[in-house]
Amino acid sequence: MRFLKLMLAYDGTDFDGWQIQPDRRTVQQTLQDACQKIAGHAITTIASGRTDAGVHALEQVVSFRTELSLSCDVLLRALNANLPDDVVAMELSETREGFHAIRDARRKTYRYVIQDGQRPDVFGRAYCWWVSQRLDVSAMQQAADILLGKHDFSSFESSGSERATSTRTIFSSSVVRDQSRGGGGYLSGDRLIYEVTADGFLYNMVRSIVGTLYDVGRGAFGPEKFAEILQAQERKAASMTAPPQGLFLVNVEYDRCWIAEPLKTHAG
Amino acid sequence: MRFLKLMLAYDGTDFDGWQIQPDRRTVQQTLQDACQKIAGHAITTIASGRTDAGVHALEQVVSFRTELSLSCDVLLRALNANLPDDVVAMELSETREGFHAIRDARRKTYRYVIQDGQRPDVFGRAYCWWVSQRLDVSAMQQAADILLGKHDFSSFESSGSERATSTRTIFSSSVVRDQSRGGGGYLSGDRLIYEVTADGFLYNMVRSIVGTLYDVGRGAFGPEKFAEILQAQERKAASMTAPPQGLFLVNVEYDRCWIAEPLKTHAG
Repeated sequence: MRFLKLMLAYDGTDFDGWQIQPDRRTVQQTLQDACQKIAGHAITTIASGRTDAGVHALEQVVSFRTELSLSCDVLLRALNANLPDDVVAMELSETREGFHAIRDARRKTYRYVIQDGQRPDVFGRAYCWWVSQRLDVSAMQQAADILLGKHDFSSFESSGSERATSTRTIFSSSVVRDQSRGGGGYLSGDRLIYEVTADGFLYNMVRSIVGTLYDVGRGAFGPEKFAEILQAQERKAASMTAPPQGLFLVNVEYDRCWIAEPLKTHAG
Repeated sequence: MRFLKLMLAYDGTDFDGWQIQPDRRTVQQTLQDACQKIAGHAITTIASGRTDAGVHALEQVVSFRTELSLSCDVLLRALNANLPDDVVAMELSETREGFHAIRDARRKTYRYVIQDGQRPDVFGRAYCWWVSQRLDVSAMQQAADILLGKHDFSSFESSGSERATSTRTIFSSSVVRDQSRGGGGYLSGDRLIYEVTADGFLYNMVRSIVGTLYDVGRGAFGPEKFAEILQAQERKAASMTAPPQGLFLVNVEYDRCWIAEPLKTHAG
């Protein structure tokens, strides 16, 4: 039995999230359908985290096991030949026995994109949260700094979660303004990017943090209030949950020892 | 009777182009439906040029006449309140009597975005043409230079056009590589942008030019062949028509005297 690590990019717009649900178009179902076509039998895939409907991934990590003898290179090409154009298999690597994308994840980074401009960008509507008020990046950064370190993040956790503990450690939490016009110049500038790295995230944690940072950015309350909200340890202390389309899973880090070198390969 | 000039941005992905056709979702129909809701009667709109299905616009110019007495500012807000989120009314100006978006256009600029990378960008698939071969920008620019000036562009005109003459003047024709990661960093870098300004364009002219520039970029033939293709004055001399989703109408220029200052206003 081989253990494999797949890196997947997807546009979450037309998916009902990662996890398989009956009669829904999900990333997991789409990937497993492609695997089944190639292998001739069902293959179960495990993602580092379940992204919600509308949420995107730049480098989602997926683990699966197979008896297939195809090289990673050939299998990667076969996957891309069988995936629709809103999912791309980026890399496929052989791992040591037992690799599990959820259990073995060490750090995850998420990015949230807000466009704060007079008019919504017609080309960004599926990839950012448009707000008409100009936001104060410096106040938002002061608030974002309060989250650094090990805390109980219950104030930023939506109900319906099954996690044993609400304590997580945030290693990095930054807000920057990106004024570059992207994509060949068709996207407007003036986007705010919140990027956060932690050892794990609670359900809707990034979107709850962003909804609360937005209230700081627009001046509804000062950044010092963020410490109170965090200490309250109840969801109602924080603000609204920001909409899904601005959220991107950027990458997931694992201990290097999992990778069985030198079989790592790139899409051709 | 008032004459108005509207600047419109739209994402062409979910439209069957600009022009009204029965049972199709077109930009013109969508805009006229919004106008009808506001005015209570039908308003005919004229765009500077009809964009095809999948083609986008950053600043399409539309002219229309109305007896409505609403200020441009109020009318602009009303339009945006009644338009779907893939069309945005950017500016609305009062013009002198007789302004006509097609007839009075002096120059138009189009942009075409190509992503030449190993893997297609899942976030760019509706906004660029992905090609897997790395293209030679310098050879493409040499070819693009040959188009400058006044020529018969029949070699780059698709059939089915009704234009009286195939002679146009190209003022600017440039190919640049844009390596910035856009949109908050979710778009990959490595895009080529072809931008062309002319006094007018034939049917499918930009996409035919880009298809032929692509052949130069991948080394199918040298840039010197471009002069021969232009001189041939028949469509079959040139290469394929590039797909629509990479094409953006950037802007349209008019003589300043059309604008009835100071009533120009911006979306709020």
